[in-house]
Amino acid sequence: MALLTRIRGPRDLDRLAPEQLEKLAEEIRTFLVEAVSKTGGHLGPNLGVVEMTIALHRVFDSPRDRVLFDTGHQSYVHKLLTGRQDFSKLRLKGGLSGYPSRAESAHDVIENSHASTVLGWADGLAKANEVRGADDHVVAVIGDGALTGGMAWEALNNIAAAQDRPLVIVVNDNERSYSPTIGGLADHLATLRTTDGYERFLARGKDVLNRTPVVGKPLYETLHGAKKGLKDFIAPQGMFEDLGLKYVGPIDGHDITAVESALQRAKRFGGPVLVHCLTEKGRGYQPARQDEADQFHAVGVIHPDTGLPVKSSGADWTSVFSEEMVKLGRERKDIVAITAAMMRPVGLHAFAQEFPERVYDVGIAEQHGAVSAAGLATGGLHPVFAVYATFLNRAFDQLLMDVALHRCGVTFVLDRAGVTGSDGASHNGMWDMSILQCVPGLQLAAPRDADQVRAQLREAVEVDDAPTVVRYSKGAVGPAVPALRRIGGMDVLREPAEDAAGDVLVVSVGALAPMCLEIADLLDKQGITATVVDPRWVKPVDEALPALADRHRVVVTVEDNSRAGGVGSAVAQALRDAGVDVPLRDFGIPERFLDHGSRKEIMAEIGLTAPDIARQVTGLVAKLEGRFDAAPAEVAGD
Amino acid sequence: MALLTRIRGPRDLDRLAPEQLEKLAEEIRTFLVEAVSKTGGHLGPNLGVVEMTIALHRVFDSPRDRVLFDTGHQSYVHKLLTGRQDFSKLRLKGGLSGYPSRAESAHDVIENSHASTVLGWADGLAKANEVRGADDHVVAVIGDGALTGGMAWEALNNIAAAQDRPLVIVVNDNERSYSPTIGGLADHLATLRTTDGYERFLARGKDVLNRTPVVGKPLYETLHGAKKGLKDFIAPQGMFEDLGLKYVGPIDGHDITAVESALQRAKRFGGPVLVHCLTEKGRGYQPARQDEADQFHAVGVIHPDTGLPVKSSGADWTSVFSEEMVKLGRERKDIVAITAAMMRPVGLHAFAQEFPERVYDVGIAEQHGAVSAAGLATGGLHPVFAVYATFLNRAFDQLLMDVALHRCGVTFVLDRAGVTGSDGASHNGMWDMSILQCVPGLQLAAPRDADQVRAQLREAVEVDDAPTVVRYSKGAVGPAVPALRRIGGMDVLREPAEDAAGDVLVVSVGALAPMCLEIADLLDKQGITATVVDPRWVKPVDEALPALADRHRVVVTVEDNSRAGGVGSAVAQALRDAGVDVPLRDFGIPERFLDHGSRKEIMAEIGLTAPDIARQVTGLVAKLEGRFDAAPAEVAGD
Repeated sequence: MALLTRIRGPRDLDRLAPEQLEKLAEEIRTFLVEAVSKTGGHLGPNLGVVEMTIALHRVFDSPRDRVLFDTGHQSYVHKLLTGRQDFSKLRLKGGLSGYPSRAESAHDVIENSHASTVLGWADGLAKANEVRGADDHVVAVIGDGALTGGMAWEALNNIAAAQDRPLVIVVNDNERSYSPTIGGLADHLATLRTTDGYERFLARGKDVLNRTPVVGKPLYETLHGAKKGLKDFIAPQGMFEDLGLKYVGPIDGHDITAVESALQRAKRFGGPVLVHCLTEKGRGYQPARQDEADQFHAVGVIHPDTGLPVKSSGADWTSVFSEEMVKLGRERKDIVAITAAMMRPVGLHAFAQEFPERVYDVGIAEQHGAVSAAGLATGGLHPVFAVYATFLNRAFDQLLMDVALHRCGVTFVLDRAGVTGSDGASHNGMWDMSILQCVPGLQLAAPRDADQVRAQLREAVEVDDAPTVVRYSKGAVGPAVPALRRIGGMDVLREPAEDAAGDVLVVSVGALAPMCLEIADLLDKQGITATVVDPRWVKPVDEALPALADRHRVVVTVEDNSRAGGVGSAVAQALRDAGVDVPLRDFGIPERFLDHGSRKEIMAEIGLTAPDIARQVTGLVAKLEGRFDAAPAEVAGD
Repeated sequence: MALLTRIRGPRDLDRLAPEQLEKLAEEIRTFLVEAVSKTGGHLGPNLGVVEMTIALHRVFDSPRDRVLFDTGHQSYVHKLLTGRQDFSKLRLKGGLSGYPSRAESAHDVIENSHASTVLGWADGLAKANEVRGADDHVVAVIGDGALTGGMAWEALNNIAAAQDRPLVIVVNDNERSYSPTIGGLADHLATLRTTDGYERFLARGKDVLNRTPVVGKPLYETLHGAKKGLKDFIAPQGMFEDLGLKYVGPIDGHDITAVESALQRAKRFGGPVLVHCLTEKGRGYQPARQDEADQFHAVGVIHPDTGLPVKSSGADWTSVFSEEMVKLGRERKDIVAITAAMMRPVGLHAFAQEFPERVYDVGIAEQHGAVSAAGLATGGLHPVFAVYATFLNRAFDQLLMDVALHRCGVTFVLDRAGVTGSDGASHNGMWDMSILQCVPGLQLAAPRDADQVRAQLREAVEVDDAPTVVRYSKGAVGPAVPALRRIGGMDVLREPAEDAAGDVLVVSVGALAPMCLEIADLLDKQGITATVVDPRWVKPVDEALPALADRHRVVVTVEDNSRAGGVGSAVAQALRDAGVDVPLRDFGIPERFLDHGSRKEIMAEIGLTAPDIARQVTGLVAKLEGRFDAAPAEVAGD
């Protein structure tokens, strides 16, 4: 790492000769494989952008120029080149974020790790430059997968509208995001890749020319310039130029000199330019290149040589869903599945293998996932749209207007709901149970264990006139939590002896059932009796809940979701509507963004642990008893 | 109306000769101008699609074939041709909806009036046809403006991915949605329009050919077919064919025979086809054609000959905002404005006129509006994004992740918030105060009158590290509602004599202040004293509110928003957190979609009136008094 350790900031790249840059790229690759093997993280995407990122930082002057990355999981190389080389606690509490972070560096602009936003950011920053009369540059890196997102289109349309506003778009085309990119755009990119024989001819010739640097560089540039006219004649530049974007490419994204040259031209152009770079995800790491499925998009802790997981995890929520979907697919021919470019991460690969004609990968396009689901349902099928909980935010309007308003039977399966941890603020699935509360007719299930995932998924796909949602956590699923009996649609998980009404009713949401049972144990030790109930379907609030609550002195709700407008609020409202004014306390995620860390660390930090909650409830009960004890005395003294 | 009244359904069109069809089109135009003048409604868009809709229903067999309209305000002609000719109560309670409605007709599929969804619906329906082995056709009509929306792109990408799945897209290109369409796509459509000289040549020739029908039709068809090869040679088909969509056009959208011919070809093609039709918004109605601004996109009640409003409305919320924005623009050079293709409806035209270099029309692209605003703010400006409240749902993820997570100072001005009435379910702005509750750091203002709009807009643009939201109603703004004094940040609008704590604390949200004062009057007559407070900023809940609430026996919240997770829920949570267990009742919009009708009718229907609320509060107070009276007796008897 002789070269890498000497890079303290982007300008340190200026002094390096071409051979040194190639050596640096090699060092970075070695570093990434070793470091990410130890902590887990996004390996494949970063191995693919090593040379491109070096070239970006040589041509542009960050942070004065804005170098923007879409879905920041491709920013590890950028971190290494901007003074952040301690990867020992990557994605761990107190360590580097797995995404750009403004708190870490002035070189980071977009922290958000939802895809397809970068062109919108770039458009805004370029407009601001124009208004302020600044001549700083804005360059945005976006993957071909992210271009399938509607936001990218909206931005391209706006960027192209201003021909004299400089902005450089670098398309990092590796023919895949998580999995191979599909659709009309992917086909068009493929055409651009394959029709351009001249670029390849030049690329080959350039190696020779580069060996005689003084003469070579200008000669290559001249050839490169002359080629354009010829290429236009024999191969139309395609949709990007139709839209009004200057197109440069395709460029070999692993050839630092070629990328630099293209970026220099783009930078000088003075208007919107798109530079089309071809890269390989997982480049230079054999296990990643051999992984057809997702080329090591994101990995846990792995052995650096083999790429095999160091510890294999047990059954997780996703695989329970995955298996049950296959069974449902066999039983019902009308069930179809939708994913937004995450076939494997959401567990639909098994369904896709058995029913390829009944699964749709819509690209990074959650909006289209939801709207097309409304169409599929109206056409007589029952779509199951499996998506990370946090990405459902992208399709809220479509879920509300297209699915719910039209009473379409569509099941949304929300994976990675609740506190997810290491991916940081934007990957926590902590909003779904809040924003879905106001969707008329929607039914929302929060299964507490594997059995309930299976059971509630089956209940969900039976509903054919309203949206249903099944949300579950990330990672390993715990042991089964049995029910004692059922009240209404709710499972009673624990109740005081002799069926006496307890002091406290604990309403447990989803995977927090074991924690709620622990809360009851702790209360028990304080002489406070508790009933623990899992409503299973948290929206609408079970009709039997108010009466059950009324038999207790305090109601406590515990959920793995934002407190604002969450299940606790909904339960409180249902109690008010029923005229049940039993004091209620709702525990959940406070109204703030959560830094990265392990799920356990974060839960402790926000006080979402059994001891924390038991302590607060004990205090509340004591206070109410005091009030209760005091009241008769006062009255008696009157 | 001799022809029109004989059309009971689409198949009645089959018998009509070309001249009769033209006559029918004329009758429909006359009908529309007369009918919509009386009730108000979307006039311009429907005048533009008369011939196209006739052709659609002649070529396709609705409802077996699915004829889909984007932003259904262009569906009046479709209604007339599918058995709905009583327009006397258009958009009024009990009358025809201003949009398609499944309850009205089997010919209606998409009720949603949010733009750019139709291609997603079409993709879903076409996929369902494929899975079910059905050979029904799907045809989707979308405006050039709606094509700027990201959802359209996501859908095009998916539609193009399946070359053997039949689907016909009709682009209704009138160069504008509400206002002229801008951006790279618009430029490309313009190129397609102007480069195709052959189509025009043929269109002229066709008139002659059509006069000798027996020979003429096939001859014209032959020419039409032969032309394609020639056209491909001299004019590249552009981005749609690059994406993998067969392109047919441009077609004169007011030539029924030409449109029919193009649709027949498209229908036979067996894969995804895009038919590019050129139309004129407001076609055939002089006042509309002369209206440069929006060509009578939507009108109130007007005089049919002049197009002038029958009654001019007074000052409305939008114009108050409009004026204040101009003042702010003069005072602060860093303030920029954003609209999503609705410059005039949201009141930004005045700002645009004075500061054309500081206003951005992003197209029907709310996502881009929000993301680019984050970029603008990061670039040192303060963007004000003015948008209808209901359309903010489109940008929830971007507001949360791009604006709030990055602590960007962006002000969202939500027009048409609350119950809007005649536009029906999808235009009510009844979700914003629910979904925004969980956005960390966001501050939300609900001004109660014109003065507060001005004041709170100014307070909002002072915040430079968090999103701010100012939401107000549709239509005329009422008289000023003065404050007696301020507690914390809250305006006290009324309080019991002698500053005694009242029985009831009424928390009034926004424009409902007069209603809340009326509630207090009504309670007063029942001997119940009430304090009425307007928190002004409803999120976060004012810190002084719990203590004020604690001095009352009942808290009542009244808001023009979904009850689920709304301001009432937030206030209740704040009281719980402060340990204030005063009973609370929250009044707002119940969890259901609202049919069209006047605002007043809808408010009455959902019980959001002063008498309804006063009655319920009176009952609650009586019940609590009973409990209070009974309790000492019980205790004393122990």
